[in-house]
Amino acid sequence: MTPQRRPFLSRTSAFPDDADSPVRVLEECLAEIGRRETEVGAFTVIDEAGARQAAAASAARWRAGTPLSPVDGMPVGVKDMIDTADLVTGMGSPLFDGHRPRFDAASVQGLREAGAVILGKTVTTEFASTAPRGTRNPWDPARTPGGSSSGSAAAVGCGMLCGALGTQVVGSILRPSGFCGAYGFKPSVGAINRGGSLDFLSQSVTGTIAASLADAWAMARAVADRVGGDPGCPGLVGPPTLPPAHAPMQLAVLRTAGWPLVPAGARASLDAALERLRAAGVRILLPEDSAMLAALETATQDAMAITMGINAWEWRWPLGSFVARDAAALSPSSRERHARALAMTQAEYAALLERRAAARAVYAALAGGVDAVIGVTAPGAAPRGLDSTGNPICVVPGSLLGAPGVSLPVLEDEGLPLGLQVLGFPQRDSELFAVARWIDDVLNG
Amino acid sequence: MTPQRRPFLSRTSAFPDDADSPVRVLEECLAEIGRRETEVGAFTVIDEAGARQAAAASAARWRAGTPLSPVDGMPVGVKDMIDTADLVTGMGSPLFDGHRPRFDAASVQGLREAGAVILGKTVTTEFASTAPRGTRNPWDPARTPGGSSSGSAAAVGCGMLCGALGTQVVGSILRPSGFCGAYGFKPSVGAINRGGSLDFLSQSVTGTIAASLADAWAMARAVADRVGGDPGCPGLVGPPTLPPAHAPMQLAVLRTAGWPLVPAGARASLDAALERLRAAGVRILLPEDSAMLAALETATQDAMAITMGINAWEWRWPLGSFVARDAAALSPSSRERHARALAMTQAEYAALLERRAAARAVYAALAGGVDAVIGVTAPGAAPRGLDSTGNPICVVPGSLLGAPGVSLPVLEDEGLPLGLQVLGFPQRDSELFAVARWIDDVLNG
Repeated sequence: MTPQRRPFLSRTSAFPDDADSPVRVLEECLAEIGRRETEVGAFTVIDEAGARQAAAASAARWRAGTPLSPVDGMPVGVKDMIDTADLVTGMGSPLFDGHRPRFDAASVQGLREAGAVILGKTVTTEFASTAPRGTRNPWDPARTPGGSSSGSAAAVGCGMLCGALGTQVVGSILRPSGFCGAYGFKPSVGAINRGGSLDFLSQSVTGTIAASLADAWAMARAVADRVGGDPGCPGLVGPPTLPPAHAPMQLAVLRTAGWPLVPAGARASLDAALERLRAAGVRILLPEDSAMLAALETATQDAMAITMGINAWEWRWPLGSFVARDAAALSPSSRERHARALAMTQAEYAALLERRAAARAVYAALAGGVDAVIGVTAPGAAPRGLDSTGNPICVVPGSLLGAPGVSLPVLEDEGLPLGLQVLGFPQRDSELFAVARWIDDVLNG
Repeated sequence: MTPQRRPFLSRTSAFPDDADSPVRVLEECLAEIGRRETEVGAFTVIDEAGARQAAAASAARWRAGTPLSPVDGMPVGVKDMIDTADLVTGMGSPLFDGHRPRFDAASVQGLREAGAVILGKTVTTEFASTAPRGTRNPWDPARTPGGSSSGSAAAVGCGMLCGALGTQVVGSILRPSGFCGAYGFKPSVGAINRGGSLDFLSQSVTGTIAASLADAWAMARAVADRVGGDPGCPGLVGPPTLPPAHAPMQLAVLRTAGWPLVPAGARASLDAALERLRAAGVRILLPEDSAMLAALETATQDAMAITMGINAWEWRWPLGSFVARDAAALSPSSRERHARALAMTQAEYAALLERRAAARAVYAALAGGVDAVIGVTAPGAAPRGLDSTGNPICVVPGSLLGAPGVSLPVLEDEGLPLGLQVLGFPQRDSELFAVARWIDDVLNG
């Protein structure tokens, strides 16, 4: 059985009638959970009772014509890095076994205030980093769903949820979304308030994974509208529902340092997509056609090394406190990261920040000439095995650049889903969605 | 009995001998706590046993010639907004009664790794905002110590601690330091890692309150050296101990919107200080002498209104979650702030950010011409009564500007301490200390 996404916003026009309602959508999600969750393992906790209560309240609001937002009643999951006052928040680490925060994270508060139905917490790798926690890909349980937002992507990819919160600092939203056939949205740095999520790195963002582009956008906007962006940032702006499609003049292909690893099947799928876009009237810019685009390839070749260095220093806290408490409870990769952090200096960190700023300047120079930058979300389909969440090398440039990005489930490799990454320009997330919507219409149409 | 500060770094050269050691300093602090704490009420919790153990370990390191840092063995307090894994962190709110975080905040981790002796948690107003929690001024128990870092300033001002962590978003470090005769250091925005402190506003900083300028600097540098600044910021840089004094050419007096409220005694004290600085060869620039300085006065006249608007929006989270949990547990001022936040829009917030950016641009233009900007930390001595922590109107401009500032205990009013605020330029904290040291030498010499 092919996994099916379960879009939400496309159904809400029917909600004033009792024939369809958030209660029905929730029951569909619960039924899918009954069918798939044992195998997939997307959740750390499922709050069936709380969700049913919330869905009933939402249904009453729709009947009364007073929904709180476009996502009122949407069954969503919350990545287990993000605090929930009513549900254990485990951070993918035994150090947080049974941890019950005193209050909701900003993104959770925003979703609740918007009427969304929080159905459960979704599996994260340890501290949203590299060590996996057992979730399987709903398209092929022998494969990883990707990470670190493993549970969010897996659950949305097979319709156990309509949407979910994720976080990304390297490739943790776009890559698993691509592997699981979901729509992923990694906002501009600062666009969604990260308060109350252990998601504090300078490249980190809170974002959404959803069954449609419309759902991904509406969830994010509902949050930003209520709790803003990170303090000091205006936060995601734009209409409450998906912006109208905008036909791009020119799209640039960013191959990234991962290109040599991309297998023939994925290349063929990307080429076919580029052909359809060209046929629809878009000019496709390749690195060999443009010195500025070539400069971006050069400036982001070391995106992984720069990112991992920045992350290591920024993890000095709280890793130092975790080590002081119980070093043995950390994964080997976290202990290695701590050792690396201790070997670094403030000056080395400052130098990495400068390299990042330089790459961002190269990217900014491209903004006038292209509508968006596109590429694959991973070097091929989700790898077999559960020991690794796959290689983020194709999506880390967008994280380094602080750019907004979406993953569209329009490519394939080995008969499995692969995402088309579409990157916009910082703080212009709404324009990105307008272009991504057009691309999605062309390639999924 | 006049309260006495208890400097730490000036004693460490004697530590290799057993005659003096961190153990002795700690016992002096504990004795002072025995004399004053019942009356002053600076602490929410005192960890005598833990501190004695840490001091003994530190003494052994000094004897062995292997102190971890200049502040190894320094008895310090931690404002109760900042997480400590071993001590309850109450946030000045019944919503956090008995709250035990799972791990230390970044600043606490940094201090522990530097060998500092954490003696207790110090009283904060509710959520580091305006509602006081009973601490009294050690110079006159009928008066407020200021806030929101009430306990930190009171304890350091009378030698119950050598230093303490504070936080400031409006005037919460510099104002209480001034009222209590302590040295306060509010770093540049981003200079000290705020992770693990409910201190998330865009103007917030974690800083230090200490018995000497040398202690305030060394504490802050020890933290930044180990856990850096806020993610994305290089963090406080400079020597591990107080930079050498630097004689300023020109100091600018910023009167602020609070000037009409400054009483004759405080004005006379400031005038006398200006005279001594002039006599020592400094040119004192007044707003009437300089169009650029006058422009700064103008750009910061609304500092309080801009700041309170920015803060209100940024408090949407977590105030919304607190209200959802137990609105009655919030102070009236917090409930008012929540109501104000709900009445605001993202666009209004963005407009306030632009006004702040404009004020910062005016300040940046002044950087070439003056070494520092000076003024009083409050309109007069600490007010009588414990219902208010006093007016932050004289220090809020520095917070708005994101500038580093120190409070020097060199002025007086009504026979009580008042601080001289010395503001530097963002990310140039070390230069600020060099100038402040020179000023302190002149005025305390």
